[in-house]
Order: sequence, then C-alpha cells, then structure tokens
Amino acid sequence: MTEQEMAEKTVKKMLKHDGFSAWLGIETVEIHPGSAVLRMKIRKEMLNGFNICHGGIPYSLADSALAFASNSDGLISLSLENSITYLSKINEGDVITATCNEVSSSGKIAVYEILVQKSDSTKVAFFKGLVYKTGKEIS
Amino acid sequence: MTEQEMAEKTVKKMLKHDGFSAWLGIETVEIHPGSAVLRMKIRKEMLNGFNICHGGIPYSLADSALAFASNSDGLISLSLENSITYLSKINEGDVITATCNEVSSSGKIAVYEILVQKSDSTKVAFFKGLVYKTGKEIS
Amino acid sequence: MTEQEMAEKTVKKMLKHDGFSAWLGIETVEIHPGSAVLRMKIRKEMLNGFNICHGGIPYSLADSALAFASNSDGLISLSLENSITYLSKINEGDVITATCNEVSSSGKIAVYEILVQKSDSTKVAFFKGLVYKTGKEIS
Amino acid sequence: MTEQEMAEKTVKKMLKHDGFSAWLGIETVEIHPGSAVLRMKIRKEMLNGFNICHGGIPYSLADSALAFASNSDGLISLSLENSITYLSKINEGDVITATCNEVSSSGKIAVYEILVQKSDSTKVAFFKGLVYKTGKEIS
Repeated sequence: MTEQEMAEKTVKKMLKHDGFSAWLGIETVEIHPGSAVLRMKIRKEMLNGFNICHGGIPYSLADSALAFASNSDGLISLSLENSITYLSKINEGDVITATCNEVSSSGKIAVYEILVQKSDSTKVAFFKGLVYKTGKEIS
Repeated sequence: MTEQEMAEKTVKKMLKHDGFSAWLGIETVEIHPGSAVLRMKIRKEMLNGFNICHGGIPYSLADSALAFASNSDGLISLSLENSITYLSKINEGDVITATCNEVSSSGKIAVYEILVQKSDSTKVAFFKGLVYKTGKEIS
Repeated sequence: MTEQEMAEKTVKKMLKHDGFSAWLGIETVEIHPGSAVLRMKIRKEMLNGFNICHGGIPYSLADSALAFASNSDGLISLSLENSITYLSKINEGDVITATCNEVSSSGKIAVYEILVQKSDSTKVAFFKGLVYKTGKEIS
Repeated sequence: MTEQEMAEKTVKKMLKHDGFSAWLGIETVEIHPGSAVLRMKIRKEMLNGFNICHGGIPYSLADSALAFASNSDGLISLSLENSITYLSKINEGDVITATCNEVSSSGKIAVYEILVQKSDSTKVAFFKGLVYKTGKEIS
C-alpha cells in the first residue's frame, strides 16, 4: 500500500465511526500523508448567544482535520495541546474550510498548523496542534 | 442591580439564544461575576472515530464557560486566543464539569483559566482563554 | 530523603550549572515538591528597542520556575509547549516574581501554571507549561 | 518611502536601543514588510542546569523576530500572547535562525508564525505570536 492509499484508508475508517464529525456535517475535500482539507456549513444550531458561530465549531473542524492528518500513517496519534486564534466572526450559512499541514514530526512528537477560511478566503481562525505519536496501529 | 444579579441576568439572556450550548446539553451549575461552572453529559453523537469523546466537546464546554464568565458584567468580550491541554480521555456517559475563573482583568484584556473534570474529579482538560473587552453593552 | 529534601537538593544541583539563570540574576524564594517561587530584578541590558523589558525576560524567569518545579522530584522533565500572556509592561529596576504551581500530573504528562508579578502585586504575565516526564533520574 | 525602506529603517531604529537582543548576539539576516529572519550563536552563559540551551533563548530570538516583523510598518504592535513548541534540543556552539512570517493581519490583531532551525535545518522550535496593533507611530 502506498502512503497515499494508507492515508485514504485510515481516514475512511475513522470517519465511519466519527459521530461528532458527522453531526458537524464535515466533508473530506483532500487527504494526503500528513495533511487534510475539511469543509462544513454553519447551521442554526451551531450559533451562540450572540447569534454568531460558537467558537467550539471552527475549533472542532480544525481538531478533526488534525486527527485525520496526524493519523494518516495508520498509527495512533493523541492530541496533547491545541491553541486557536480567532480572526473573524462566522455567520449562519457560511461554509468554512480547514487546511491542515504538518510543521514538524520527529520521534514521538508532531506539530500541525491549520488555517480555517470562509469561501471568499477570509481567514477566520488559526490553529496549532501538538500530538503524541504512540506508534500503535489503528485497529 | 448587584454584580451577582447582572451576572445571572446576562447568562440567562445569552443561554436563551445559544443553540450550540443547548445541543451540547449544557447545564449552568454556578454563575458569579467573573466565574462560571457548567456541566454536561457525553452522548454517543459526541464521540470520534476511536469511540472516545471528540476533542471539540470539552473545548466547547470550556469555551461556553469562558463566554459566560467573561460577559458576566454585561459588557461584550470577544475571544482572541484559547489553548487547551488534554489530560485524560472522556467516554460516552461521562459527566464533565468546567470551572472557569478569572486570572487577570486589566483594561481591554482579560485572562481566564478553566479546569474540566469528570464526576470522580479526574482532570480531563485545562483551558486558558484570552478575551478582548469591547466595553459595549450586551443588547 | 523526604520529598521536600529531594526538591531542594535537585534545584540546588540544577542552579549550580544554570548559566542563563545566573545571568538573569534569578533568586530562589521558595521550592516545594511541584512548585517554585523565583525572583529577579530587571537590568538595563534586559530592555528592548522601546526601552521596556524584552518579552523574553519574564518568559525565561517563568521557564526556569517551570524547570525547577517539574524536576523537583529528581526525575527529568522536558518542556514540550509553553504559552505566555502579557498583561502589563515591565520597566528597568522592577523586581518580578514568578510563582509556579502544578495544575495536573498524570503518567508522562504534567501541566504547570505560573503567574509573574511585580513587587506591588501587579500581574505582568501568565504562563502555562506542558512537560513530558521521562522518568529518568537527574544525574 | 517604500514599505521595504520603512521596514529596514524601523528595525534599525529598534535594534539600536535593544539591549537584550544585543546581549543575545542577534544578527539581522533579512527584513521585509511583515517578515524577519534573525540569527544567533549559543554561548556557554545561555545554557541551563542540564548543560543544554535554556528554553528562554530560542523563545527570545523568536520574540525579537516577532517584534521586528510586526513593527515593520512603523506602527507599534504589542505582544498579547505567544506560544512555543520545543522540537529538539540546542547545544553550545549551535547557530540558530528564526524565520518569522505573517499568518494574518486584520484590523487591530495580527498573527505571526516563527520557525527556529539549526544550521543543518533541524527544526528546534515552532512559535506562534499574537499582537495588538495600536496604530501609533514608533517615535
């Protein structure tokens, strides 16, 4: 199996059981070894008390992108610490896309960065994720 | 109105329109000026591809606690940057509680920390939130 | 040896060889298992291009406090990721104190928080540190 | 004055008074509007108690790069929150280079990322910086 085939197979397996990504309506745009592009549309039940998108929604999209990118080699990675900077507000009906790329991977630790953008390319969030690579195969 | 009454009134107003907090099943345990304690139960549709709770769920609970605590003075605060450290996995059926306290508030910037724990006090996440205080009243 | 004796012995050993903490003029105020209080005075050569204290100085004080607190059990801990929020500017001649406490320690991962304050208790920085506990003894 | 001339002029002005960057031995490799590349060599007095480079040193180099890049338009930017992930240890004699690029700048908030590498391209740290743009001219 090539690395690309492994990445696609792994994400397919993960998505099949990922109830929260399903609720979010996450669509896989691209998967490559160490990277992922995911997309979703903001629905009314994703808004907060100020009638704009809850901060947990773009975070969750980015966190799913991190999970798919960091597990794309078929080995389990665990999130240790993530941070997110909010750059612009998101409204109902907006389609947002998270693009996750590997910054560094050495031994047990890997770092990824994720940019979340609207359809018109407006940057809405920037996310950094640190994972621990267990080395164990995804069953 | 006392500060405590303002905090309670503001959170009530925010929660009324907060569709995502409603979907999460968030329950307000305590509200005080600058602090909030929120609780929720992990449901099947909140799990990820490894059958454990998606990282976006405890983040979102903590982010709601941050919103309620930082807006409790009736003035709009906007999240700038949050970070979360994952300390232990969360399973379906677990009840998690987020306790948010103010670390510092001076001028336009305030910082909060939030500890997320299971019913048996196991620490599952530690969250730090930085907000910008606009000074504008919540309408 | 008690835990307190181990903490004191370890920090003494670490400080003896810590050239940068010596340059900073760091003074150990308190050491306990899992916690540390350090103090230093801002000198002219610690200022930046705007004639206020360089952001790397309170960071470095907090990072030393993290190192002493997280290694106080005599086992090597390695910094994985730290974040710092700047709350107020620091001037030449100010004495700043970093107080480091453990938030959580479970298995291989521990989290610490550090508050940096001036002599008049003004909060100048809030720092969060994530370390990996190797389990190896400090030689 | 072109943007490039303004960037060079501003950094020259900042460096002239930056005592800590001078102590670190920071050398300006490249300056452009919104970006900066800085280099320094690790000296004995920059080591910690384990005889490796203190975590505050690569942080400080990255923080100086952030300051030069974010002020390169001649307007004062203030650091709000930075985070750093440590990827590999640094030894005495190593030459490290910080490359700072703008991720996003909109209104009052800008985000930068900085990669710190050794001469052989080994990644030693990844830094994210969030600044508040005051809009005031550097005097």
